[in-house]
Amino acid sequence: MERNIETFLGCDKTFEEARIVIFGAPFDSTTSYRPGTRFASRTMRAESYGLETYSPYQDLDLEDAAVFDGGDLELCFGDVDRALGAITDFTAKILEKGRLPLMIGGEHLVTLGSVRAVASKYPDLHVIHFDAHADLRDDYLGARLSHATVLRRVWDLVGDGRIYQFGIRSGERAEFAWGEQHVVTRRFDFEGLEQVTERLKGKPVYFTLDLDVLDPACFPGTGTPEAGGVTFLQLLDAMMKVGELDIVGCDINELSPQLDASGASTAVALKVLRELLLKLDERYIR
Amino acid sequence: MERNIETFLGCDKTFEEARIVIFGAPFDSTTSYRPGTRFASRTMRAESYGLETYSPYQDLDLEDAAVFDGGDLELCFGDVDRALGAITDFTAKILEKGRLPLMIGGEHLVTLGSVRAVASKYPDLHVIHFDAHADLRDDYLGARLSHATVLRRVWDLVGDGRIYQFGIRSGERAEFAWGEQHVVTRRFDFEGLEQVTERLKGKPVYFTLDLDVLDPACFPGTGTPEAGGVTFLQLLDAMMKVGELDIVGCDINELSPQLDASGASTAVALKVLRELLLKLDERYIR
Amino acid sequence: MERNIETFLGCDKTFEEARIVIFGAPFDSTTSYRPGTRFASRTMRAESYGLETYSPYQDLDLEDAAVFDGGDLELCFGDVDRALGAITDFTAKILEKGRLPLMIGGEHLVTLGSVRAVASKYPDLHVIHFDAHADLRDDYLGARLSHATVLRRVWDLVGDGRIYQFGIRSGERAEFAWGEQHVVTRRFDFEGLEQVTERLKGKPVYFTLDLDVLDPACFPGTGTPEAGGVTFLQLLDAMMKVGELDIVGCDINELSPQLDASGASTAVALKVLRELLLKLDERYIR
Amino acid sequence: MERNIETFLGCDKTFEEARIVIFGAPFDSTTSYRPGTRFASRTMRAESYGLETYSPYQDLDLEDAAVFDGGDLELCFGDVDRALGAITDFTAKILEKGRLPLMIGGEHLVTLGSVRAVASKYPDLHVIHFDAHADLRDDYLGARLSHATVLRRVWDLVGDGRIYQFGIRSGERAEFAWGEQHVVTRRFDFEGLEQVTERLKGKPVYFTLDLDVLDPACFPGTGTPEAGGVTFLQLLDAMMKVGELDIVGCDINELSPQLDASGASTAVALKVLRELLLKLDERYIR
Amino acid sequence: MERNIETFLGCDKTFEEARIVIFGAPFDSTTSYRPGTRFASRTMRAESYGLETYSPYQDLDLEDAAVFDGGDLELCFGDVDRALGAITDFTAKILEKGRLPLMIGGEHLVTLGSVRAVASKYPDLHVIHFDAHADLRDDYLGARLSHATVLRRVWDLVGDGRIYQFGIRSGERAEFAWGEQHVVTRRFDFEGLEQVTERLKGKPVYFTLDLDVLDPACFPGTGTPEAGGVTFLQLLDAMMKVGELDIVGCDINELSPQLDASGASTAVALKVLRELLLKLDERYIR
Amino acid sequence: MERNIETFLGCDKTFEEARIVIFGAPFDSTTSYRPGTRFASRTMRAESYGLETYSPYQDLDLEDAAVFDGGDLELCFGDVDRALGAITDFTAKILEKGRLPLMIGGEHLVTLGSVRAVASKYPDLHVIHFDAHADLRDDYLGARLSHATVLRRVWDLVGDGRIYQFGIRSGERAEFAWGEQHVVTRRFDFEGLEQVTERLKGKPVYFTLDLDVLDPACFPGTGTPEAGGVTFLQLLDAMMKVGELDIVGCDINELSPQLDASGASTAVALKVLRELLLKLDERYIR
Repeated sequence: MERNIETFLGCDKTFEEARIVIFGAPFDSTTSYRPGTRFASRTMRAESYGLETYSPYQDLDLEDAAVFDGGDLELCFGDVDRALGAITDFTAKILEKGRLPLMIGGEHLVTLGSVRAVASKYPDLHVIHFDAHADLRDDYLGARLSHATVLRRVWDLVGDGRIYQFGIRSGERAEFAWGEQHVVTRRFDFEGLEQVTERLKGKPVYFTLDLDVLDPACFPGTGTPEAGGVTFLQLLDAMMKVGELDIVGCDINELSPQLDASGASTAVALKVLRELLLKLDERYIR
Repeated sequence: MERNIETFLGCDKTFEEARIVIFGAPFDSTTSYRPGTRFASRTMRAESYGLETYSPYQDLDLEDAAVFDGGDLELCFGDVDRALGAITDFTAKILEKGRLPLMIGGEHLVTLGSVRAVASKYPDLHVIHFDAHADLRDDYLGARLSHATVLRRVWDLVGDGRIYQFGIRSGERAEFAWGEQHVVTRRFDFEGLEQVTERLKGKPVYFTLDLDVLDPACFPGTGTPEAGGVTFLQLLDAMMKVGELDIVGCDINELSPQLDASGASTAVALKVLRELLLKLDERYIR
Repeated sequence: MERNIETFLGCDKTFEEARIVIFGAPFDSTTSYRPGTRFASRTMRAESYGLETYSPYQDLDLEDAAVFDGGDLELCFGDVDRALGAITDFTAKILEKGRLPLMIGGEHLVTLGSVRAVASKYPDLHVIHFDAHADLRDDYLGARLSHATVLRRVWDLVGDGRIYQFGIRSGERAEFAWGEQHVVTRRFDFEGLEQVTERLKGKPVYFTLDLDVLDPACFPGTGTPEAGGVTFLQLLDAMMKVGELDIVGCDINELSPQLDASGASTAVALKVLRELLLKLDERYIR
Repeated sequence: MERNIETFLGCDKTFEEARIVIFGAPFDSTTSYRPGTRFASRTMRAESYGLETYSPYQDLDLEDAAVFDGGDLELCFGDVDRALGAITDFTAKILEKGRLPLMIGGEHLVTLGSVRAVASKYPDLHVIHFDAHADLRDDYLGARLSHATVLRRVWDLVGDGRIYQFGIRSGERAEFAWGEQHVVTRRFDFEGLEQVTERLKGKPVYFTLDLDVLDPACFPGTGTPEAGGVTFLQLLDAMMKVGELDIVGCDINELSPQLDASGASTAVALKVLRELLLKLDERYIR
Repeated sequence: MERNIETFLGCDKTFEEARIVIFGAPFDSTTSYRPGTRFASRTMRAESYGLETYSPYQDLDLEDAAVFDGGDLELCFGDVDRALGAITDFTAKILEKGRLPLMIGGEHLVTLGSVRAVASKYPDLHVIHFDAHADLRDDYLGARLSHATVLRRVWDLVGDGRIYQFGIRSGERAEFAWGEQHVVTRRFDFEGLEQVTERLKGKPVYFTLDLDVLDPACFPGTGTPEAGGVTFLQLLDAMMKVGELDIVGCDINELSPQLDASGASTAVALKVLRELLLKLDERYIR
Repeated sequence: MERNIETFLGCDKTFEEARIVIFGAPFDSTTSYRPGTRFASRTMRAESYGLETYSPYQDLDLEDAAVFDGGDLELCFGDVDRALGAITDFTAKILEKGRLPLMIGGEHLVTLGSVRAVASKYPDLHVIHFDAHADLRDDYLGARLSHATVLRRVWDLVGDGRIYQFGIRSGERAEFAWGEQHVVTRRFDFEGLEQVTERLKGKPVYFTLDLDVLDPACFPGTGTPEAGGVTFLQLLDAMMKVGELDIVGCDINELSPQLDASGASTAVALKVLRELLLKLDERYIR
């Protein structure tokens, strides 16, 4: 008899066979408001058997995709540096073997751990950021490493003109002002995405998707819901465009299962994950 | 003093006075993922006193409609054949007396019980199917009688070219392929409904409405929510079109009250039921 | 050391400095269906620290606004007259000092307490009413003071042609008929709002906002959700139009936190409150 | 076909056949803290099919008992006097026909409505009161009719030395002091109950049972849980003693289904009801 | 990289090394009241990382125990015979290799699948049954295979005088009467357990533990909670006695995670499992 | 008009008048399993209006007690050292002015912040620790500052023979072994407490109360519930004994409101707080 193996639905390739490696980063220690995203990857894995592997939108099937599920990292709560270090190390290991890392957060700060590894391999890295929140503060309640500062810390790595933000509809006045100078901000929705993807063709791109870019109507299960977001179909369309680029790293974050009594937000997150995996798998050549 | 009588709001006609007979089919034994639709009819009946009897959309009132509430069937859990048999018998009894049966599920498999009776009376039966899922598998985990095979079993009864599907956005590749050959599938939304209703004028039609055709944003309280669905107003509009046909049997299913902490999905289901009853009552001549 | 002070985020001006005074009216005794709006003001205050003070929509910040938080009234449950009296007294006190009262309900009946004070100061008062329900019954289960009769009682004060209703999609046939004669009803959405605001320029206006005007998709956390409502962005746009008028009193009501397991409805209510406060503060000259 | 009849499990006798009449009093308008007991009778009726009719404790079966379920009263929210009046009228009607009334609350204030009718028939009435709270205030937040004053209002009817309280462990200092003078208070548990039942043999007794006399460990589903209460088996034993007396009216109240996510408190309430009905039915001779 | 392996905490031995094999039987199709036990094994596995491997009660550690986690069976919903067959086959396979099977239900009917395999190997089998419910009906709503008939079906296999029941406090009159003739019933608690274990020394014993034997105070998370049960410490003590016998098969069932909002019932179930595993592992010689 | 002031019920003295200062430490960043204790102090303050100020157990009233509510500290999530530093500073400030600090956690690690200040003032400090968990690890997942190491870090400050533990029933083998050498451990319940309080008479004592010492039956609302704990009345009795000592600092922690759907655990925590405050206030002479 074999031991009990649990993977995201259809992601049952071996590491050797895989093009994409997904893994969970269950961490939410800096979440100041309502924690719980630490449970996202575990819940998504468990609930994934309620999802079909086939996408009628793309006419592709996860059973044909080359995805390895690396499980969840064991991250130290209460020591942010250690936690980010572990994420960077794991991401680097995946990149080293020529696989595409797709991380499931956790709070948005985990993105920094992953980007550190990816930016180290791809110095010319650009970042596409879907989110309701700008996350551009320099510090938050005194901490420089926080979910609310993560894109600012990413900017420390990639610099001016490399970050493209969509769906942003919340932040403090100062970070909106700072953003005007340093990042390519597009407020509220996906207007202008087409021009951006046109411009980034051929360049290495990191794609970070905070699921609260969705309107709380279709995604209430997140710690800081922001009314006025996009619909699932708008997000699907935008992801298909981003997926045409040379994605060299990506993550999906901020599902908070405890706030998702009906399970509908988890189902949305899984469908987003499936569509993204299928799109990336189709294009990725290691 | 009289015994405690509980009916859907406004559905207080006697069987003799009624044109339409509603009844509950509390059954969800084959639900593989998250059960709970067994509680739908009971919860809808109890919560219906929070609903108005008057529809400002149609300017009609349930108090003027001729609807009898037949209560809930007592169905045997763990014996699918017995349960379906009981549904068929009850539906046949209603048809025999010239009333229109409207069943409240339960999981979608209950539709088979009802269609068996209706198809037996109307050999030329056509089926209009609103759903997020194709439900066209030939078997599911080895079982031929399952919520995931129900339209396939209906096809066994009515044959090619009789089933019209709308809103479908989930299934396995094989059933989408099979559907292309045997049913009139319209993916994702209600595009093309008008032509279909045009074509079906004068023919006996069974209308089966899986409420998860709605987007989880407006209907999260269901076992297998599928993002990318229609809005309430789109569904209302589509129902008004279907209601112009000669409906000879119908059902509404897949509300799962345990997944509806806010009660908003139950309220949606009740409003859908009210509008459908008013539309059918207005047209039905036994 | 100072005592623990708790205010809506950013509403930390003194009464002397303030232009607007917000206060809670935690009362829901006449709610016939599902009570719980009594918890709205307390929950909104507690959860407000999860909200940004800055609005990217209006480019204004609550920290610059002149808002005083007067806390919650202590209202007697089970004695409607006493409760309404206390609201009227408190509102009158605010008006007397030349501040604009903004009340957080509570069930919709609390509006009557506030309007009594405002109408007494402004005999030429007009009322703009956003809601899913007409609330125009003359009595409800025998009670003349009820959430379902509140606009009828307001009509007793202001008379024919002074009430403008938007978003209304539920009620009994009789009150829709009565409304046709006595109020300016616009069913279902915000169609015609522009003409109304044009007409009301320069006149004193009371604005009462029942949050269930929103579709349950974006606002499930309310006692009587009604499918077919407006989106947050539609409401935001409509509020900006209303905010151009000479608002002399207003309220927001019917959030029911117990029905808001995810917290998304509370977040919506807070965002609506922030946008309304910023708009009113900008224009208000005492 | 017959209309849908819903009764407490096994309580399917006609009024003519019955010795005991149960009915619901869904009212909680004066509840100052967390409302919701209005849903108790409805929920208990709906959930009762999960209960066995047979009691292994008493070796008696509800199917042999003579109980009629009179359904729920329709009570006016927001008008306490009307609501209590309706309860008194209904109780009087039951007494007139020689049946024993057993009311399901509702908040504890409903007891006053019932006691008014019973005390009018039995001038020599004594009252046994199981509760966590003394409920002896003269007024509460200005209201004389309140869940927190109900036993004081009952004392207005029956006078000194007629009220026996058990399980009481919460109240203000003043009402404990008042109680020392006017009622026979036994704090915290059932100590001394045996002497009381001995003393009351042959006298007409009203038994009012606030379920929060139970420890929150076994009964969390109530608005104002008070640690340090009795266990189910202690309550069962105490009820058997009280049931030996000449009970001429009784009620069970304060279950709040919305606070009972697991359903365990509803199950406890139903078991308490079954045991009480069986005990009373066995002894009652009209 | 290795695939994601998920086991009950500390149960990470290989099948070869193991003395005990645990596995899940996620099945609840015949549950007539509130389903959900299908999620028990999955939830227990996921939540087990919140548990210590060390028992201060027995001074033993799961890390030293020889337990293999065989994962969850994939059982067909809606076909009881197939599901039970799969359980019997899997249990037989474990017995064949000389390991002790410990099954995690699921509803109680799954016990029948396991006992069939065990009784086939040990014709002289005795059964110790801890439960709130007798489960001795011959049929339930027409079905002979049901959670409410499971011990009757076990009796079909082992016959008179072989079944010992403890904690039983619910059932219909007829099954209590039948039980008096055919099984060794001990009502309500563990009185007499010591004599039973004395008598069964040296005989092969199957131990089936329905967790609702616990009082709902400490175990609310189950479909049919029955007040008046035992405490955790009483159960622990009783298990230690049973664990002294020659246990040749066992199961734990009826945790329903959806009814366990606080997680406390899952934590109890895990602690019961840990203590039972440690006790059995210490004694088991294959 | 005055700003909105919110304090624990009856704790409305000024700092000058007070003998005891209560304050919240909303911090749970190192919680590895289920976070949420950050919400405890806020929720307890908000819910406290459902509590009586009078204790019938001690015949004392909070309105007569001299307690100042210092509100909640604003602690930096994701930086443990900063957070603990802020707690130590605030506690020191209270001690300096001769008031008794009573902190409301938060996770148990907050105790370290408080003890640092108290031990600095009272070098001869002894610690009484009520808890389900030993919390004596030297590090946890690599972190030395963690809820699971807090008593070990306290031992670093006070040394051998100064820590007295009661109720402990969970931990790893190693920490139980370490505890045998360095602390005065009493497993499982309050046995031996009387001798301990006898021995500690006249010595300065810090009292730290992890509410999960209670059985999950009466206190399910905590992150790591451990079956087999004490009852409320046992805890009350033990607190009265401890309260006879010279308490120079204390805290109550580990309530997790999100896990307390019924509110019963919050009610228990408030009652524990009330009884402790009354006991300490009665004895404390600054």
